[in-house]
Amino acid sequence: MPYVNIKITKEGATKEQKAELIEGVTNLLVNVLGKNPATTVVTIDEVDMDNWGIGGQQVSELRKKPKP
Amino acid sequence: MPYVNIKITKEGATKEQKAELIEGVTNLLVNVLGKNPATTVVTIDEVDMDNWGIGGQQVSELRKKPKP
Amino acid sequence: MPYVNIKITKEGATKEQKAELIEGVTNLLVNVLGKNPATTVVTIDEVDMDNWGIGGQQVSELRKKPKP
Amino acid sequence: MPYVNIKITKEGATKEQKAELIEGVTNLLVNVLGKNPATTVVTIDEVDMDNWGIGGQQVSELRKKPKP
Amino acid sequence: MPYVNIKITKEGATKEQKAELIEGVTNLLVNVLGKNPATTVVTIDEVDMDNWGIGGQQVSELRKKPKP
Amino acid sequence: MPYVNIKITKEGATKEQKAELIEGVTNLLVNVLGKNPATTVVTIDEVDMDNWGIGGQQVSELRKKPKP
Repeated sequence: MPYVNIKITKEGATKEQKAELIEGVTNLLVNVLGKNPATTVVTIDEVDMDNWGIGGQQVSELRKKPKP
Repeated sequence: MPYVNIKITKEGATKEQKAELIEGVTNLLVNVLGKNPATTVVTIDEVDMDNWGIGGQQVSELRKKPKP
Repeated sequence: MPYVNIKITKEGATKEQKAELIEGVTNLLVNVLGKNPATTVVTIDEVDMDNWGIGGQQVSELRKKPKP
Repeated sequence: MPYVNIKITKEGATKEQKAELIEGVTNLLVNVLGKNPATTVVTIDEVDMDNWGIGGQQVSELRKKPKP
Repeated sequence: MPYVNIKITKEGATKEQKAELIEGVTNLLVNVLGKNPATTVVTIDEVDMDNWGIGGQQVSELRKKPKP
Repeated sequence: MPYVNIKITKEGATKEQKAELIEGVTNLLVNVLGKNPATTVVTIDEVDMDNWGIGGQQVSELRKKPKP
């Protein structure tokens, strides 16, 4: 009966990758906690890079900087 | 002062249906718990069917299968 | 398949009141959107009054003030 | 290591305003609780006005009414 | 940079099981989407069985019923 | 009308610190976006350190390690 919400930046995750996330998280809950997969719900939020911050900065700005 | 978040798959809920959800949930909190409707907030997230999984599968795939 | 999260202040909601909320929200989603109740999930978070703010103030402080 | 989610109605917040929110919230957590900004994450959800209710009514409808 | 929230009913998940969930979800995001584990955050909410409903009923009540 | 949820590890934040977070976030939304403070809601979740992971590890374990 678990509910899982995954938030990622919107950067082109494919339908197949999302399917892998959903299947993988569901299997993990079955294997670790013995949960019933039939009522395990997973939702994925894809968040615009202007709307995601880390270290006080927008990801859309961080992506422009050269990596050290 | 309650806050309610409703997540549904994005499948064409109309503005009128959303209004009914908002009104219905607010009334429920007033009737059951005596909450003040003026500060009761309801948000609705419509989630792409590729981004919603149940039973380890994407809803976009489940919808394609014939019902038993 | 909807998922609903209800946040209320922790002020002694009874088990019966929570059951009413769960049943009421589930029925609302069935009636308004034709959702399947079997996979409709509702969770309730009861939040300490020190941890809930409105108008920039903690509810634990607001509750001490006389009503106008 | 905090995680902050800000939900606002979708009404044209600019990239610069979102940057201010992200920076401001991060600084607040550093200043008040001594949190490490490098692992402080902030996400902003912009919610359609049809999908946001207060007082039992959609914001898209409330915005049409004259202010008293 | 992903953020994952896992909600499960409070039924005695051990510290070790929670560690497995955290490690497993983080690895999944690294393997499927190439995310940086260092900034991948996972939180687990354990929800009282009176506060979790499915099919319109509290889990605390469902657990009492004999399985068919 | 914004809604803000702050998640922090449960490590003894005081009532006064929580009040500062609530007031600070509310002021930020008023100053940056011109939001109405009266309907701005802030909730704080304090998460057990066993239930929070970063870099694939529980914070309760990370706290035991010497800092480099």
